[in-house]
Amino acid sequence: VKRFRPDKEGAEDSGKTAVVFSLKNEVGCLVKALRLFQEKHVNLNHIESRMSKRVPNEVEIFADCSCSKKEFNELLEHLKDHVNIVSFNTPAHVWYEDEVPWFPMKISELDQCSHRVLMYGSELDADHPGFKDNVYRQRRKYFVEVAMNYKFGQPIPRIEYTEEEVRTWGVVFRELTKLYPTHACKEYLKNLPLLTKHCGYREDNIPQLEDVSLFLRERSGFTVRPVAGYLSPRDFLAGLAYRVFNCTQYVRHSTDPLYTPEPDTCHELLGHVPLLADPKFAQFSQEIGLASLGASDEDVQKLATCYFFTIEFGLCKQDGQLRAYGAGLLSSIGELRHALSEKACVKMFDPKTTCNQECLITTFQEVYFVSESFEEAKEKMREFAKTIKRPFSVYYNPYTQSVDLLKDTRSIEDVVQDLRSDLTTVCDALEKMNTYMGI
Amino acid sequence: VKRFRPDKEGAEDSGKTAVVFSLKNEVGCLVKALRLFQEKHVNLNHIESRMSKRVPNEVEIFADCSCSKKEFNELLEHLKDHVNIVSFNTPAHVWYEDEVPWFPMKISELDQCSHRVLMYGSELDADHPGFKDNVYRQRRKYFVEVAMNYKFGQPIPRIEYTEEEVRTWGVVFRELTKLYPTHACKEYLKNLPLLTKHCGYREDNIPQLEDVSLFLRERSGFTVRPVAGYLSPRDFLAGLAYRVFNCTQYVRHSTDPLYTPEPDTCHELLGHVPLLADPKFAQFSQEIGLASLGASDEDVQKLATCYFFTIEFGLCKQDGQLRAYGAGLLSSIGELRHALSEKACVKMFDPKTTCNQECLITTFQEVYFVSESFEEAKEKMREFAKTIKRPFSVYYNPYTQSVDLLKDTRSIEDVVQDLRSDLTTVCDALEKMNTYMGI
Amino acid sequence: VKRFRPDKEGAEDSGKTAVVFSLKNEVGCLVKALRLFQEKHVNLNHIESRMSKRVPNEVEIFADCSCSKKEFNELLEHLKDHVNIVSFNTPAHVWYEDEVPWFPMKISELDQCSHRVLMYGSELDADHPGFKDNVYRQRRKYFVEVAMNYKFGQPIPRIEYTEEEVRTWGVVFRELTKLYPTHACKEYLKNLPLLTKHCGYREDNIPQLEDVSLFLRERSGFTVRPVAGYLSPRDFLAGLAYRVFNCTQYVRHSTDPLYTPEPDTCHELLGHVPLLADPKFAQFSQEIGLASLGASDEDVQKLATCYFFTIEFGLCKQDGQLRAYGAGLLSSIGELRHALSEKACVKMFDPKTTCNQECLITTFQEVYFVSESFEEAKEKMREFAKTIKRPFSVYYNPYTQSVDLLKDTRSIEDVVQDLRSDLTTVCDALEKMNTYMGI
Amino acid sequence: VKRFRPDKEGAEDSGKTAVVFSLKNEVGCLVKALRLFQEKHVNLNHIESRMSKRVPNEVEIFADCSCSKKEFNELLEHLKDHVNIVSFNTPAHVWYEDEVPWFPMKISELDQCSHRVLMYGSELDADHPGFKDNVYRQRRKYFVEVAMNYKFGQPIPRIEYTEEEVRTWGVVFRELTKLYPTHACKEYLKNLPLLTKHCGYREDNIPQLEDVSLFLRERSGFTVRPVAGYLSPRDFLAGLAYRVFNCTQYVRHSTDPLYTPEPDTCHELLGHVPLLADPKFAQFSQEIGLASLGASDEDVQKLATCYFFTIEFGLCKQDGQLRAYGAGLLSSIGELRHALSEKACVKMFDPKTTCNQECLITTFQEVYFVSESFEEAKEKMREFAKTIKRPFSVYYNPYTQSVDLLKDTRSIEDVVQDLRSDLTTVCDALEKMNTYMGI
Repeated sequence: VKRFRPDKEGAEDSGKTAVVFSLKNEVGCLVKALRLFQEKHVNLNHIESRMSKRVPNEVEIFADCSCSKKEFNELLEHLKDHVNIVSFNTPAHVWYEDEVPWFPMKISELDQCSHRVLMYGSELDADHPGFKDNVYRQRRKYFVEVAMNYKFGQPIPRIEYTEEEVRTWGVVFRELTKLYPTHACKEYLKNLPLLTKHCGYREDNIPQLEDVSLFLRERSGFTVRPVAGYLSPRDFLAGLAYRVFNCTQYVRHSTDPLYTPEPDTCHELLGHVPLLADPKFAQFSQEIGLASLGASDEDVQKLATCYFFTIEFGLCKQDGQLRAYGAGLLSSIGELRHALSEKACVKMFDPKTTCNQECLITTFQEVYFVSESFEEAKEKMREFAKTIKRPFSVYYNPYTQSVDLLKDTRSIEDVVQDLRSDLTTVCDALEKMNTYMGI
Repeated sequence: VKRFRPDKEGAEDSGKTAVVFSLKNEVGCLVKALRLFQEKHVNLNHIESRMSKRVPNEVEIFADCSCSKKEFNELLEHLKDHVNIVSFNTPAHVWYEDEVPWFPMKISELDQCSHRVLMYGSELDADHPGFKDNVYRQRRKYFVEVAMNYKFGQPIPRIEYTEEEVRTWGVVFRELTKLYPTHACKEYLKNLPLLTKHCGYREDNIPQLEDVSLFLRERSGFTVRPVAGYLSPRDFLAGLAYRVFNCTQYVRHSTDPLYTPEPDTCHELLGHVPLLADPKFAQFSQEIGLASLGASDEDVQKLATCYFFTIEFGLCKQDGQLRAYGAGLLSSIGELRHALSEKACVKMFDPKTTCNQECLITTFQEVYFVSESFEEAKEKMREFAKTIKRPFSVYYNPYTQSVDLLKDTRSIEDVVQDLRSDLTTVCDALEKMNTYMGI
Repeated sequence: VKRFRPDKEGAEDSGKTAVVFSLKNEVGCLVKALRLFQEKHVNLNHIESRMSKRVPNEVEIFADCSCSKKEFNELLEHLKDHVNIVSFNTPAHVWYEDEVPWFPMKISELDQCSHRVLMYGSELDADHPGFKDNVYRQRRKYFVEVAMNYKFGQPIPRIEYTEEEVRTWGVVFRELTKLYPTHACKEYLKNLPLLTKHCGYREDNIPQLEDVSLFLRERSGFTVRPVAGYLSPRDFLAGLAYRVFNCTQYVRHSTDPLYTPEPDTCHELLGHVPLLADPKFAQFSQEIGLASLGASDEDVQKLATCYFFTIEFGLCKQDGQLRAYGAGLLSSIGELRHALSEKACVKMFDPKTTCNQECLITTFQEVYFVSESFEEAKEKMREFAKTIKRPFSVYYNPYTQSVDLLKDTRSIEDVVQDLRSDLTTVCDALEKMNTYMGI
Repeated sequence: VKRFRPDKEGAEDSGKTAVVFSLKNEVGCLVKALRLFQEKHVNLNHIESRMSKRVPNEVEIFADCSCSKKEFNELLEHLKDHVNIVSFNTPAHVWYEDEVPWFPMKISELDQCSHRVLMYGSELDADHPGFKDNVYRQRRKYFVEVAMNYKFGQPIPRIEYTEEEVRTWGVVFRELTKLYPTHACKEYLKNLPLLTKHCGYREDNIPQLEDVSLFLRERSGFTVRPVAGYLSPRDFLAGLAYRVFNCTQYVRHSTDPLYTPEPDTCHELLGHVPLLADPKFAQFSQEIGLASLGASDEDVQKLATCYFFTIEFGLCKQDGQLRAYGAGLLSSIGELRHALSEKACVKMFDPKTTCNQECLITTFQEVYFVSESFEEAKEKMREFAKTIKRPFSVYYNPYTQSVDLLKDTRSIEDVVQDLRSDLTTVCDALEKMNTYMGI
């Protein structure tokens, strides 16, 4: 998948008479090529050369022509008989952006990501507790439909959960809430009562995603959206870049309330949501998402592993004690106990090494990673993001919920100007403390 | 109106056994007062003194007590017979925040501002073109109802405009669009075609606010909401702090399409909306709004004057020529021509002086103010905001659409940490330019 | 004067096989030129084109060749018969730096500036009070020699002043110090007693420049050096860029102690030095100097005018009253009184307009400019510096007392990284205030 | 050692009528104490309480009195009979700074540090190669005298080295320079030829510290000064805070040129100096120094260990290979070979863990620490510095070569304002790149 699209209205025009072609890196080749322009009486605005990353010992030439569209097309006809045209109608910035995988540039484009489901939640494996339960399978199909019809900007459909579903949730809720006071991190413990108050987190009620989404937006800017099943790491992480969390909405099978082979709404609501309400955790989560945009498959895999060992299985140290903040732990009685016991192997979270740890799906993890604070974890992720190979840096615009690519002086200057403005505010705030508190 | 509310969940508890009282600034007074604590066997956690701003030559004492709620209440009973209690159950930060007028702390609280209408759009003056037109007056009542029922988060009701209304809009649209190419600033000319494309800006169609709002959000993070009539400057500017623009939705009377004594949807849609779609203009507008939060009446008045001479009547210099960006000009054929003519008096925009200029309502302005760029105008506003007398600085959180008060080291440190993170991104972006472009 | 020199050790090597040549901007010209390279079997590392600023309708080509020094020389021989060679052995950055006037890149290079005297202090005009006084003229020659022999890093020679010189200084000192309490700015009044204490500012003693220089370095990082007479504005301002102030060391003629047609050591010591000891004033002064480095003659003239109306004739507002900080005022009883009287015309300092005001030499100024604070004045100068036309921005390195040119991503990134580090310190400082003061 | 001194001229006055005393934390105690003020008819400007760190269960009271110096002294007489006076004439900021060890606040105060020698270089141990060599011992006494007489600001005395000394240096120089191309880091290899050129680094010449110092100042702002023997870690690191390196000037005994039990000028010149010329290494070195100012003994020890494993024994990774940058390695043939061999144990440098490693003096180190870059190492040190327990953060002022304590809003605001100014320059630089290079 290549990414050749103008990022802004109006940019469609620029580059419409530019062409990129490749040449052997030999004496005289460029002259021969330029003679082709001469033969068509086409003058050049700008020419630039670079070593090809595609073909060893070849040079790529970017040539921006000064001619009409018609003349340019004739030129191309002529060129293609003699040189290897890499692309044409190429804005200058695309030259550098070549080979970057597609990614959403604004929040509404997440619809594409969230609908590209790898395995539907309704396709149950033979060992799934609900495999032979036709009613359950029908119910799961309903949830798939809800999610596949959902589009950005709509309210999330409210589900009328069955009594059986509520009972299943109730068991999970009751058992886990016993463990939280001694096992969950303080951010979790702060937000759970608020969720009870504002979103109906109760043993006898399954909270609605729409309520949760509105609550989260006020708390940290996160929102959730329903998803029909597993997404690829790339598509899932892209959501985080926009502070959007893809949530399943169905409930695990009632035969075994404390076990589920896949994420269900109990996992999302009890594991993920209370943390997503924390502003620093939200920043950290978004950081992983932003790092993934346009990254190579290899880099996305590393980021997915970082995600796994933090947002799903992360530990933190608070007041000298280990506590869990990962949703995989906070929604599993067994592993939650295990991870905080003497038996567990615990290392410092560091994306450089954590990204190479194997993720285990069917057993407890062999190692857990601990962070001092979400602030620190975020900073480490941002440092790690520098190692992502892509020809730009990304900057999130929370007003338009879109991503700016920092790849030229203009876009960087915009960011620096905003920082400068913010320092004006910091000065003002310090001045006000001085004036009003005399400090 | 005083502002005594905890700004964060959980802060409710702190300060529950603190009291602020005032004393004559005389030798021995503090001893007498402290003896009152001693008599009730109440020990102090913290004590601090300051000169009273309320009563000359008095001192205010903040005393945080170490005792039970019950003991504290008994203490208060005892104290009030001997000293002047200013407040009790007082969190420390409130001590410094005293006397700040109420303002919305999150976007949903704008409902309060937008419903506090000074003069309803249906209360027509005797010289209003529609004063004797009962059908028109009924229609105006309908628009008032729509606006007064509107709440944050809802889609804006779509209006079925009458043929007459569309005709009126059509005349305004046709006449003004003739002038724009030579009179409007480039940001306006860039956005008008986009509004035609995405929101139905056409001579034969009145655009719907809901479409406009969605469009603006994607462009600059602004949204609009319907309003029933005039708001106070304080309430109107508070909207800008959240990038919310209060828009009338009715159409002027059909008898005189090129005149209206009050803002109508033609003014909003043709004057304001195209500029609100520009990110730098959006920043500038928000800047005025943020400066107004918690400001004194006098300071709000100055900011309203700055608003008037920029967002309503502002000029800018582009490619060596004066152009209009103010909505009051861009929706008025006569004044638009006048302001760019030789006859108009033009000065540099500078909040320090502009804020004292008289705003004229029924005639052309005596002077117009010109800015180099919205960036520059924004920086000037932020500098000006420093002179606003309030015991904190405000920082907008676009994720939660709420306002953070910078008034202690913790809140300032959060901002500085974010800036530091952003500089990491800037470094990365420069590094990427270096690697991929060799510059 | 052109500036074609590598700015760093090691950079000498890069660019040694690069050539810049110019061509008619016509179809086919580039092909013809490149064929010249082909004929010499020289391959290209990098080629880039741009419009010539020298010759209308010509294009300049930068070509970095991949060949030995010997092959390159042969190529040049060949090229020069066919194209117009602009430069060769050209590092890439020089391409962009072309046509920048020479300027000192480190503090020791100021020797060149300070010795380039326009008019020696010993060449007295016919109307000079000392014109016919041979003893005085001999004495002045001595001071010229001292200054012309002075080199960076040396201690400034101590002068044994004659009794007559001390008497002259004494009169000036006595009369001016009467006015200061009511006319000089608070920074002046703060530093004068310190200069008495540390540098022997007394009616009966002329302070030594060496003592003054050591004092200033501890206070603000400024140093002074002796100068033989008038420098050009460019050479004088270059000193300020390095926080170096060129000072005359001789004393005015004894016949008229309260008048001098040229700067003398009384003017320097009583007018300039007390302000140079103020850190914010030092920053402001340096700002003008940095802006002047590499600027065009026209821009240097504007900066010299800003210098004139601030450092020589500037006023400021303190506690609601006008005060003088300019040395021309603080060393002239008549004009000091005039400038703060009702008769004087006073405007706000703004480099954009101030730079066009006429400087008057033999009479009082027609207008004086007032600043709120040196901080504000510095910020205005830095904003104004952006308008200086030069292909880089300058960044002062106070450790090495040299100037870094910001003209590529690497040099900018270095600055941004330092800023980021400093924000770490700011965070730490806020954290410490929080921990130790509970605020 | 306590630190109770005003940090700025003029601050001497403030706090002259303030007193700090301690009380039992019991009901009524404060009243009793305040009655003492009342009895002396002394009114209070400001009063503040805090828990004592000195005596458990005591409270300390800071009271700023409104009275004459004479009245204050009478008050103190009265107070001291009834309460425990902790300090008086106490500026408010000192209250928070109590118990911070003394440290130099400006570069000239380093004289105190550098003259506080723990063991003179002339006191040789019995196993020292020169122990029985009376001529050598006399020579060493000479070097002690030179160092002990040296004061900041003076040129470093040039030494006339004996033929024997030069021969000893020559052996060391010859042997080590063989190893450098394959063992030293690239910064070392870049600077060594420059030192040959500018400071006479040759086999037959021992470079003079004065030449080295001038060279370093131009390169990185470091200077060196002669030292008579071992300093305490605190005194030695304080030098680094000011980019001052304390250097021995004597030469090891001639009997064993490749061995010395103590640092000598060969170690300084060949080990330290080439790295000190690197700007990034200079920043890193200063970072350790700044962290040490005012730190506790325990923290200074940790920093000294970080110093030991970086500046003395540090490794770095360059182009995929380990290289040495530590002076202890670069001046020792045996350990330099060992550290880069398979036998050595190598870990990542991280101050948090490195600070606890044991420093070995008489054998090779058990472990070496490797850094990616000096930039990265500096950032890690600055993060580590946050954990230093002291009631302020320090900010180095390179203009005045003094240290600012960031401990109130005013000092922090000054830093933030400078950062904001620097961002203006960054914006300008990006703008210039955009204008002149079209990027």
